[in-house]
Amino acid sequence: MPAAKRRPKIVALAGGVGGAKLAYGLAAVIPSEDLTVIVNTADDFTMFGLRICPDLDTVMYTLAGRANASTGWGVAGDKFYAMAMLADYGATDGWFNIGDYDFATHIVRTQQLREAGLSLTDVTAELAASIGVQSRILPMCNEPVRTVIHTPNGKLNFQVYFVQRQQQDTVEGVEFFGIEKARPTEEARQAILAADVIIFCPSNPIVSIGPILAVPGMRELLLESSAPKVAVSPLVGGKALKGPADKMMASLGHEVSAYGVARLYAGTVNAMVIDHADAEQDDSIHALGMQVLATDAVMHDEADRTRFAHEVLDFALQVRHNEM
Amino acid sequence: MPAAKRRPKIVALAGGVGGAKLAYGLAAVIPSEDLTVIVNTADDFTMFGLRICPDLDTVMYTLAGRANASTGWGVAGDKFYAMAMLADYGATDGWFNIGDYDFATHIVRTQQLREAGLSLTDVTAELAASIGVQSRILPMCNEPVRTVIHTPNGKLNFQVYFVQRQQQDTVEGVEFFGIEKARPTEEARQAILAADVIIFCPSNPIVSIGPILAVPGMRELLLESSAPKVAVSPLVGGKALKGPADKMMASLGHEVSAYGVARLYAGTVNAMVIDHADAEQDDSIHALGMQVLATDAVMHDEADRTRFAHEVLDFALQVRHNEM
Repeated sequence: MPAAKRRPKIVALAGGVGGAKLAYGLAAVIPSEDLTVIVNTADDFTMFGLRICPDLDTVMYTLAGRANASTGWGVAGDKFYAMAMLADYGATDGWFNIGDYDFATHIVRTQQLREAGLSLTDVTAELAASIGVQSRILPMCNEPVRTVIHTPNGKLNFQVYFVQRQQQDTVEGVEFFGIEKARPTEEARQAILAADVIIFCPSNPIVSIGPILAVPGMRELLLESSAPKVAVSPLVGGKALKGPADKMMASLGHEVSAYGVARLYAGTVNAMVIDHADAEQDDSIHALGMQVLATDAVMHDEADRTRFAHEVLDFALQVRHNEM
Repeated sequence: MPAAKRRPKIVALAGGVGGAKLAYGLAAVIPSEDLTVIVNTADDFTMFGLRICPDLDTVMYTLAGRANASTGWGVAGDKFYAMAMLADYGATDGWFNIGDYDFATHIVRTQQLREAGLSLTDVTAELAASIGVQSRILPMCNEPVRTVIHTPNGKLNFQVYFVQRQQQDTVEGVEFFGIEKARPTEEARQAILAADVIIFCPSNPIVSIGPILAVPGMRELLLESSAPKVAVSPLVGGKALKGPADKMMASLGHEVSAYGVARLYAGTVNAMVIDHADAEQDDSIHALGMQVLATDAVMHDEADRTRFAHEVLDFALQVRHNEM
């Protein structure tokens, strides 16, 4: 009789939609409590006096089965009554829309951070648990960090660049304001050191995974872990599946391809998952010292998420085996 | 040709629903900008980290034509999506219900008080103006004051007594916590000193008008004003039209009648408006040194509000004439 196989612990690094989809798939193919998702918080901002964490919420709503699949943000079935009244008060110029369900999240979070003095890690754990999320969702750090996009029109806060100005500006530089004071949380540290596999979700490598890796001490922690690090390319056929990753990489002088993504992760990541469409980049990615899986990397529906998560996980465990 | 008659300036002291109805009527029969409503803020409280001012909001929504007439609180047509999500988060036990439109009010108010550093007077002015209120709505003071109800079950914050416990407790005493630090605002001072008529709306004399009069300096200011002070009894036939005024007066040892109300206001008020049902109390109220108008004091509908406001105003201007 073989010894009972230890259930592998998975850590996923994620931004918004793409990361949330893969995390959802992973939570479906392993016991969900074995998954920890470490999420970018450099997109966070304060509006109407409320602390808004777009990526944490996208991951949380997705894992709770409550994400609005058609918009890519917010809660399914949400309404906009509070927003309409805020417009009556002249309190909003309307570029950032928050649903009524969603407001509840920001209200509780703000109250818990401000009055109860809880950390963002603790507040996130409470919110997620109370709407039925069994995996662990961790902010990349508890300190506030703010992505600032340098453009010919000046320095723009991320949501202004991303939502208000619809990513129309050329990105000349990216800055993570406040990152020097950030540290990986104790919870993130323990999860990373206990992980059997670490997956970089198909999120924007510059502004989603980038800030996570830029937290001082985070890259060292990942290297300290003996788990294989497998990154999923968010670019398929040279295009971002969602968001501005392709334009942003181009204007920052990176090659806009799965290989370009691999180069950004070189030295941190052991393997890449790319789409069949990019299979011809296999050799050049190998040349960076990474193993490669080419598969169907587009998650159209829920079945896709599970299928893809299975493939990524099997590949990652194989990478692990090869390296041991 | 007679000299142009100066338009009388009206100040109304008000609590919630009854006060709001009369204020609405007054704003309909005089140029609305000639009306200033000074509102009780001792019912204010903080929930979900948001500053909630029930009486200010009832007056504001009513004057904006947006009050929910069937509930007596909140905004017409409001929905409760945020509240449902707050319940999912376990953040509310459900006794205090806030609509989505209403949340917008509390969100803007809280932000303006906290981040913009505005006074409650300024925030209220901005909110009211932006939803079309032309009369002036002033909080009784800018300092936080908190009505605490002493009961056999302990000291209860007003909303706990009023909403959560449905006024079931015997009222043994009433305390306005923090009132010693409150002062009439400069805006209230100027409005009172410029008033030609001061009307005490048909609001609870203990916990609605009571706190306004208890603001240190407020009673002196009212006495300094040469305008006649006319109080409208909130009791008709010995019963409160709404709320716990009758039970509260009884348990505090006051006579539960229009005369009992008049006695509470004796020394501050020159005249009372009472319902026909209480006409037999005319003589005893006269004996307190007050003039009396007995009329139909119940405002069933909008026509009633205007008719009644007209009568109260005509009577008050006559009181003024008699005294000059």
